[in-house]
Amino acid sequence: MQPPAASRVSTVVDVDLGDRSYPIYIGAGLLNEPGLLQRHVHGKRVLVVTNTTVAPLYLEKVTWALTHDNPNVSVESVILPDGEKYKDMDTLMKVFDKAVESRLDRRCTFVALGGGVVGDMCGFAAAAFLRGVNFIQIPTTLMAQVDSSVGGKTGINHPLGKNLIGAFYQPQCVLIDTDTLNTLPDKELASGIAEVVKYGLIRDAPFFEWQEKNLSALLAREPSALAYAIKRSCENKAEVVAQDEKESGLRATLNLGHTFGHAIETGTGYGAWLHGEAVAAGTVMAADMSHRLGWIDESIKKRVINILEKAKLPIAPPGAMTVEKFKSIMAVDKKVADGLLRLILLKGPLGSCVFTGDYDRNALDETLRAFCDS
Amino acid sequence: MQPPAASRVSTVVDVDLGDRSYPIYIGAGLLNEPGLLQRHVHGKRVLVVTNTTVAPLYLEKVTWALTHDNPNVSVESVILPDGEKYKDMDTLMKVFDKAVESRLDRRCTFVALGGGVVGDMCGFAAAAFLRGVNFIQIPTTLMAQVDSSVGGKTGINHPLGKNLIGAFYQPQCVLIDTDTLNTLPDKELASGIAEVVKYGLIRDAPFFEWQEKNLSALLAREPSALAYAIKRSCENKAEVVAQDEKESGLRATLNLGHTFGHAIETGTGYGAWLHGEAVAAGTVMAADMSHRLGWIDESIKKRVINILEKAKLPIAPPGAMTVEKFKSIMAVDKKVADGLLRLILLKGPLGSCVFTGDYDRNALDETLRAFCDS
Repeated sequence: MQPPAASRVSTVVDVDLGDRSYPIYIGAGLLNEPGLLQRHVHGKRVLVVTNTTVAPLYLEKVTWALTHDNPNVSVESVILPDGEKYKDMDTLMKVFDKAVESRLDRRCTFVALGGGVVGDMCGFAAAAFLRGVNFIQIPTTLMAQVDSSVGGKTGINHPLGKNLIGAFYQPQCVLIDTDTLNTLPDKELASGIAEVVKYGLIRDAPFFEWQEKNLSALLAREPSALAYAIKRSCENKAEVVAQDEKESGLRATLNLGHTFGHAIETGTGYGAWLHGEAVAAGTVMAADMSHRLGWIDESIKKRVINILEKAKLPIAPPGAMTVEKFKSIMAVDKKVADGLLRLILLKGPLGSCVFTGDYDRNALDETLRAFCDS
Repeated sequence: MQPPAASRVSTVVDVDLGDRSYPIYIGAGLLNEPGLLQRHVHGKRVLVVTNTTVAPLYLEKVTWALTHDNPNVSVESVILPDGEKYKDMDTLMKVFDKAVESRLDRRCTFVALGGGVVGDMCGFAAAAFLRGVNFIQIPTTLMAQVDSSVGGKTGINHPLGKNLIGAFYQPQCVLIDTDTLNTLPDKELASGIAEVVKYGLIRDAPFFEWQEKNLSALLAREPSALAYAIKRSCENKAEVVAQDEKESGLRATLNLGHTFGHAIETGTGYGAWLHGEAVAAGTVMAADMSHRLGWIDESIKKRVINILEKAKLPIAPPGAMTVEKFKSIMAVDKKVADGLLRLILLKGPLGSCVFTGDYDRNALDETLRAFCDS
């Protein structure tokens, strides 16, 4: 087992969580470096969890990276159907079935190979199998690389709400091979950009300004622009998660636009819209409400709409979403506490936000009415 | 909210786990002390998880204890079918369904009211709902009071093996009202005694000797004998769990007889035998194997058989269990590591044991052949 040549890993971002700390490796061609992955495998047995879209593209390569010059390790895999609508208990059981049938034991390692759905499900399966086994994230979508693979949130959807069942469970490492973005559809790329924009809006004005200047480069998949966007997003997320792993407050700000966005995803049926598409529309709604409350200048709201529109992301919910639908779904959001819905809203200059239940209810109603036909 | 009169709580055993520490209250009539329970409830919403046997006996009383002089708290309940065979994903989903439909949020509290199955399922549901909500154990069987409610192991069964899916998740408190044992069937009482015997054998010779002298009193349900057995069992368990919460070594010794016992439970179909009945037979098998290895005197093996027989517990597996059945089920036990089955075996004087994979395989084969017809 060779340590990788330092030159090949462009960047390492450390997630500082005491004895649960771990590195995020970011670079082109990292899946060609078996040593990098192998040093984080515990035990002799590996279960790769992936889906029908990603398996034909990368499963063979990942299996090679896990086993090259490493004959003691054997790899099993389970290939799930692709899509948010399969992020449910029935599909999760397929992972447990495979793990039990393969007689995996506590010294095994689960590897998530795919986007956010695969990462969330594999992570929760790793958290719950034998009450917890080791786990590695290999995110292959921009969404997963800049957001969902980092920070240990894992879980599945309930028919009545998104991510209602899960665990906080940290991986051994996150390995981001930016080459995997070459096979990503444009819509998926845009979906990831919605989360990149989020980091700028909630806490990093210079990053938002960089995005405004470099959006064309990101959409054209210029490697250096993508690498910088991923690195800066992971750094922002790692800083927030290190301060508030279990989301007692600060971490919730990473959910800007997500309460509206989750309602869209739940209300239209999981998978009708990509997560980032729903978040984009939700972010516009959050900005609109922040402006109605007098908490941000109109110019910020316009810049939000502008950048998301340029990224070809939706800036309003689909017609099927009514005011009532939003309200009833948002009532079961995880950020409700003792019956009060708390929201992440922009407040102050660019790059500032609050997480609060202390806002004028009328502003929420006005925003919902402004964005819904009925 | 009144603090309880000190005189009413016979004993408090503290489980020392840093910021996850919690008290175990043990005493007669503790459910008549609303303040005791209420001080550990977080938020305004409570979900009591219980079963069809326990609900008619204690649900009303627990609801009273939660809400008496406490009008801000509202209580929902979900009543599961009774029995180990329902400790599965489908039944677990009923808890999530109820929680989501009731729009419970992160500031709610789950209360497990019942035996080990209810406690394990409610605990896992609390660990996974919204990635973790508060949770209280009110065990009503001797088995749950002396063992399963303490220490944070939660989970459900997989068709191919027991407790393969779950979490380590600690409650806010464990409340043991010994009056609830008055409604416990004799078979269930005996089942709990199997775990009490275990503590003596693995680490507490004076406690085992006390049990030999007081077994009739326990079977006759003398309150002071039961209270002492529960207290000493909880103290033993709390000491072990405090040293090794996640079972990296020492904690595994609490599973004396359980590898054989789980195989019996899985092999005969969950629920055919009570957990303690299977553990009793498994403990005799572990003692037999320890003796074959020359690790304990025959006198200890005889005392094990003697005390379990007196408690009217089985001292051999059912006829349906073959050598092959034992072997194939034990191969997926959680204590297998890198393919090697580790066992808890008695070694040395009374009250001493080891957790090891370093034993003569022939002794295991001989024990299996001695206890199985084929």
